[in-house]
Amino acid sequence: MPDFSIGVDLGGTNLRIAAVTSDGQLLEKVTLGTKTALGPNHVITEMCDAIQRLTATYQHSGKFLGAGVGIPGIIDLHTGMLRKSANLPGFEEYPVRDEIERRLGFPKNAARVVLENDANVAALGEQWLGAARGVPNMAVATLGTGIGGGIVLDGKIWHGMNGMAGEFGHITLEPNGHLCGCGNHGCAEKYASASAITFMARAAIATGAAPSLAQAASSDPEFGARSVYNLALQGDEHARQIFRTFGSYLGILLAGLINVLNLDMFVLGGGVSSAWDAYAPTMFDELRARSLVYAATAPANPLMKMNDSSPKDSAPESRTARKTIITQALLGSDAGLYGAARAAVLPG
Amino acid sequence: MPDFSIGVDLGGTNLRIAAVTSDGQLLEKVTLGTKTALGPNHVITEMCDAIQRLTATYQHSGKFLGAGVGIPGIIDLHTGMLRKSANLPGFEEYPVRDEIERRLGFPKNAARVVLENDANVAALGEQWLGAARGVPNMAVATLGTGIGGGIVLDGKIWHGMNGMAGEFGHITLEPNGHLCGCGNHGCAEKYASASAITFMARAAIATGAAPSLAQAASSDPEFGARSVYNLALQGDEHARQIFRTFGSYLGILLAGLINVLNLDMFVLGGGVSSAWDAYAPTMFDELRARSLVYAATAPANPLMKMNDSSPKDSAPESRTARKTIITQALLGSDAGLYGAARAAVLPG
Repeated sequence: MPDFSIGVDLGGTNLRIAAVTSDGQLLEKVTLGTKTALGPNHVITEMCDAIQRLTATYQHSGKFLGAGVGIPGIIDLHTGMLRKSANLPGFEEYPVRDEIERRLGFPKNAARVVLENDANVAALGEQWLGAARGVPNMAVATLGTGIGGGIVLDGKIWHGMNGMAGEFGHITLEPNGHLCGCGNHGCAEKYASASAITFMARAAIATGAAPSLAQAASSDPEFGARSVYNLALQGDEHARQIFRTFGSYLGILLAGLINVLNLDMFVLGGGVSSAWDAYAPTMFDELRARSLVYAATAPANPLMKMNDSSPKDSAPESRTARKTIITQALLGSDAGLYGAARAAVLPG
Repeated sequence: MPDFSIGVDLGGTNLRIAAVTSDGQLLEKVTLGTKTALGPNHVITEMCDAIQRLTATYQHSGKFLGAGVGIPGIIDLHTGMLRKSANLPGFEEYPVRDEIERRLGFPKNAARVVLENDANVAALGEQWLGAARGVPNMAVATLGTGIGGGIVLDGKIWHGMNGMAGEFGHITLEPNGHLCGCGNHGCAEKYASASAITFMARAAIATGAAPSLAQAASSDPEFGARSVYNLALQGDEHARQIFRTFGSYLGILLAGLINVLNLDMFVLGGGVSSAWDAYAPTMFDELRARSLVYAATAPANPLMKMNDSSPKDSAPESRTARKTIITQALLGSDAGLYGAARAAVLPG
């Protein structure tokens, strides 16, 4: 039996703890509710109890290598504290890593606790065991209420200077576009998230020109991106147009990211990513128009421009060049759990 | 005397060769014309003659570690050939690296020849000895006819999967914007390059509402970004507005890049970058509005949104966080020469 580590997904609703072997086999997974109302001490105690039960159960099978904890928030990697978390009230300025290490009674240099942002561990999970298995350089964009982003370079999470890399959701796509909660106008998450689908549907309903959407919204108290997708599947033209628009903006976002990073693969996660057939055609249209790697492989493209300062982009030969692969996530909500277990064993 | 390497800047007009010590001291620089009309064999022979003269001159001072060659074009890093170069006709499919190694008679495993894109070595040069000295993670954007881009992560050039990383100039800033030579609409280089300045000036002249620009254009056969800057320095409002617009778009571009990579520093190069006073105010306005790192440090910003999927962006504490530094390049056209010398000695 190989050595193992613990992955923790500390979400605002669920607290999940998994023991995973170093070759990616799940030993056991525990799912608890996150009782944030009882305060961080209580939550961390429940987490550590579960970790200790798992490590005791599997200690005779292999060596315990450490624990990784994925958290939705801004993490100070040096102090192991949360600078801010939207979904974990009371955790700001709580010494999460130190408290976990103290309760587990880790001997020095034996095993370790690593805190990570949830989007980053989701990317690492997909890279380790999911859609990007074996792909060294990749990123995940999780299309939910907002857009979560994580970048993996050479098999490791890319943090940037203070852990705020991968904020794909707040890249400007329309300089004079919709106001975002961050204060900016035209952020990607106002155009290419699940919320954006709902927003577009509400806007279409408001014009009075989309009776099918209006009917669905009035009869469904949980009207949202899924409802719009169901209508699109039934051939409703308003719903289909919304996903085409979503796909176009997603394509503009990805094209920019590909021009910057030239990654091997982009993995799309979040519930709305499964509506692939409804948005992928326009997404790829934009990628062919706006990404040099895709443009160079398009059948009829005028990419013959000679850019004096940096004509990396002007290769007819690159028609045969590899394109960045865009694909759907495979691990769903387990991506972060596996990624957290992986983060615990990667070199710091 | 420390060991040394050779840096080569193989441009369409000039061929420059420098011997540089491993601690960044220039030993000697040779500037030749690039006689592309005589074919690649002739150009490579002249280059190798100069390299051999320099290595012979300094071989008693220190060990010769290798040669790096910066080239404006798409380079196949594996074969050491140019897939395409706008400024070096006849060099496509010519085995540049192999021919240099053959002429220099390099013994195996003794010294080596590295080919690099010119924008990438410019970034590495600024990181090694220029504006970003000692800064591990940075990028350069060279604002010229187009926008050249190079990214350095952990002190090494980031190539991406096929060497096409750092194509900042073709990131879409305006989805329905001006047509670019690459076939896309709204590319950054149509809004934030030296050409964009000239384009905006011509457009203002065409409206008939900018007589000062019209007069300058009619009296100056080389009317361009510099002419517009000179007018701006004299207080001409049309010229000043053009630089304000340029700064806004440059800020939008940089804000997006900062949200993705969270780099320590962006270095702006190219002639137009020196017009800092004319464009920096609006550039920083956009950075504060559109980059999370800048927004978090702005005095009054509404960045209190809680993003369910990835609230890395929601830290009031990050008001004190470090911002990505934006600064002007220091080495001018020597950046690529030094960077090429550096590329020769970095681990492959």
